[in-house]
Amino acid sequence: MRGGGEIAGDEGSVADLGEWGVIAALKARMPAGALTLVGIGDDSAVVSAPSGSVVAAVDLLIEGRHFRRDWSSAYDVGVKAAARSLADIAAMGAVNTALLVALATPGTIPARWATDLAEGLAAEATRAGAGIVGGDTARADSITLSVTALGDLEGRRPVLRSGAGPGDVIAVAGPLGHSAAGLALLTAGTAEAADELVTAHLRPAPPYDAGPEAARLGATAMIDVSDGLLADVGHVAAASGVHINLKAASLAVGSALREAAARLAVPLPPSRTTAGYSPATASASSVRSPSGGRSETAVALDWVLTGGEDHSLVAAFPAAVTLPARWRVIGEVRAGAGVTVDGVPHEGPAGWQHFR
Amino acid sequence: MRGGGEIAGDEGSVADLGEWGVIAALKARMPAGALTLVGIGDDSAVVSAPSGSVVAAVDLLIEGRHFRRDWSSAYDVGVKAAARSLADIAAMGAVNTALLVALATPGTIPARWATDLAEGLAAEATRAGAGIVGGDTARADSITLSVTALGDLEGRRPVLRSGAGPGDVIAVAGPLGHSAAGLALLTAGTAEAADELVTAHLRPAPPYDAGPEAARLGATAMIDVSDGLLADVGHVAAASGVHINLKAASLAVGSALREAAARLAVPLPPSRTTAGYSPATASASSVRSPSGGRSETAVALDWVLTGGEDHSLVAAFPAAVTLPARWRVIGEVRAGAGVTVDGVPHEGPAGWQHFR
Repeated sequence: MRGGGEIAGDEGSVADLGEWGVIAALKARMPAGALTLVGIGDDSAVVSAPSGSVVAAVDLLIEGRHFRRDWSSAYDVGVKAAARSLADIAAMGAVNTALLVALATPGTIPARWATDLAEGLAAEATRAGAGIVGGDTARADSITLSVTALGDLEGRRPVLRSGAGPGDVIAVAGPLGHSAAGLALLTAGTAEAADELVTAHLRPAPPYDAGPEAARLGATAMIDVSDGLLADVGHVAAASGVHINLKAASLAVGSALREAAARLAVPLPPSRTTAGYSPATASASSVRSPSGGRSETAVALDWVLTGGEDHSLVAAFPAAVTLPARWRVIGEVRAGAGVTVDGVPHEGPAGWQHFR
Repeated sequence: MRGGGEIAGDEGSVADLGEWGVIAALKARMPAGALTLVGIGDDSAVVSAPSGSVVAAVDLLIEGRHFRRDWSSAYDVGVKAAARSLADIAAMGAVNTALLVALATPGTIPARWATDLAEGLAAEATRAGAGIVGGDTARADSITLSVTALGDLEGRRPVLRSGAGPGDVIAVAGPLGHSAAGLALLTAGTAEAADELVTAHLRPAPPYDAGPEAARLGATAMIDVSDGLLADVGHVAAASGVHINLKAASLAVGSALREAAARLAVPLPPSRTTAGYSPATASASSVRSPSGGRSETAVALDWVLTGGEDHSLVAAFPAAVTLPARWRVIGEVRAGAGVTVDGVPHEGPAGWQHFR
C-alpha cells in the first residue's frame, strides 16, 4: 500500500495532518483481522475470543532507548514494535488476533514517517495473523510506541513459565544472539545493509506459529527471548522452582556469528558507542567491549547467552516428546535452582534491566 | 496498601529499585480482577471473555501534555490514566474486566511517586471492576503512560457511534464542563484544594456502570465525552449520518460552574498560562480567555459544550425509553447532518485536536 495517493499530506508533518488525519492515514494501512468484530473508529474495538478467554500483553518501544532513527527506518520500527508484543502472545501458546497501537510523536515528524511506521506494523501483524484494531495518538517530545497484543488459546491451557519439571528438555525455536551481533555491527560502524544479523536486530522475526505448536506438543513452560537467553531461562527456572542446565555445544554458535565477532576484533573508537541507546541486546558485555582479547567463539557464545530481542521461543518439553526440526534441544531441567551452562554458572551479566 | 513495608526502596528512585523492583512494587498494589486467569508475571495475561469476544481500547497520558506534576499528584495521574481507557469500554456498553499499563519514566522519578501512581491506577480500576493484569516499564526522558482496557459485553451487542436514528433523544450521564472549569481555575491560580471542579479535572470519575445500563435500555449509539461535548456528539452524528440538536436550557449549567466563571472574571497575567500543557479540556476557548467580557453563564456554557475529559457518557435512545434519573435528556436526533445548539451551529472551536 506504499504511496497510497488517498492520504493527503504525505509530504508534510504529522502536525500538518492533524490528529484525525494521522489516524486516517494509519487506519488506511491497517489489516482488519479475521476475528475483528469492531475495528478502528469507535470508542473501543471488539475482537472475537473463541476460547472464552483473551491473552493480552503490552510492550513499549522508545526512541533513543530501543531504536535510533539513523539506524532504523520507520518501517523497521513498526516491525520491531509489533514483534515484541506479538511474541509475548505466542509464548503463551496462543495465536495472535489483534494489536492496539498507541503512538506519541513530535509534531515535526514527517507524515511519511508515520505512514511507513504503519506499513511496518501492518506487515508484522499480518505475518502473525493479527488485525490492528485500535490505537491512540498524541504529541510528545520523543517517539514512544506502546503496542498491546491480544490472542486466543484455541481451547488449550496457557503455557506458563511455571510448569517445567525435572527431566524435561529445554528447546528453542528461532535464532539466538543474532540481534545482539547485529547491534554490535551497527555500533562498530561496520554494518552492511544486506547483513542478516543487522536485519535481525532491526526487524526481529519471531516464529509465532511455533508457540501454538509447542502447546500442542505438550510444552510444560515457555518464554520468548527478550532479555537474553540466560535471563529468560532464569525466569522459567525461578517460576518453576527448578534448575536449568544449558549445553554450550548445542547452542549453535554458527559461522555468521563467528564471522561477525572476527569483524569486530579491531578495537573501536569510544565515540561509536552511544549514550542512552540501550535495548535489551546491549546487555551482552561483548557489545560494549567487542573482543576484549577473547576468541571469536567466546564472543559469539556471549551473544547467544546474553543478547536479547531475538524473540525466539524457549520451551520445556517432556523428554519423550518428538520435536519438529525447528526446535533445537539446548538443555535440560533438573531439581534445584538457578541456571548453569555445562554445569557451571555463567560469569558476567546475564541479561537486561531497565532503569539501572 | 500504602506504606506496605515489603517494598524496599520506597525512599529511593526507580533507578535504585531497578526494573524488577519497580514491577514488584507495582504488582503488590494491583487488584487481581475477578475474571483474571493469569495475571502479572508471565509473558502475557489471560482474562476470561465470557461473551466470546473482548472489548479493547488504549489511551496515552503524557506529562506536560495531559498532566503536570505540580498540579497532579502521582495518585491523581494514576486515576486519570485509568479513567480515560476504562470509560472507552463503558461507552461500548461493556463492563470493564482488565487493564494493562505501560509506564515510561526517567530513572530519577522517586520510587514513592511510582507506587503512589500504582495506588491511583488500582483504585480507579477497582471502582470500575477491573483487575490490572499486565504491563511494561522502561526509562524515558519524560513520563508517558499507556493504558489498555479490556471489557466484556455480557452477551449484548456493542453500542456503536453509528446507530443513532431520527427521533432518538440524546442523553448524558455524568457532569459536563467540570474538568474544563477545574483546569481554568488551576490555570488562573485561584484553585482551592477542596474545589470539586479541580478534583473533576485531576481525577475524573466516569459513571462506568451507566454504559452497560444504557445498553440494556436499548441505547442506539454511545460515546464518552473526552474531546468535548460538541466534538464527541459530532462523531456520533457523522458516524450515524444524522443531525443532532442540543438544547442549551437542558445542559444544566449549574451554580458551581457559574461561580467558577465569576471567580475568573478578573483578567489573568499571561504568565499563568503554560505552553505545552494542553489536555482536551483546554480546547474550551474560555480556558484561554476566561471571561472576555462575556456573561458568567456564557463562559460556563462554553465549558459544557467544548470542555473535554469529564468522560461522561452521551447516548442516543429511542424516544419511548424511560430513562433512569441520572440520564439527562439534552437533545434530539434529526435527519440531516452536523450538530447544532438550539438549531444554530456553535461558534468557536468545538473540541480538541492533537498535533495542531
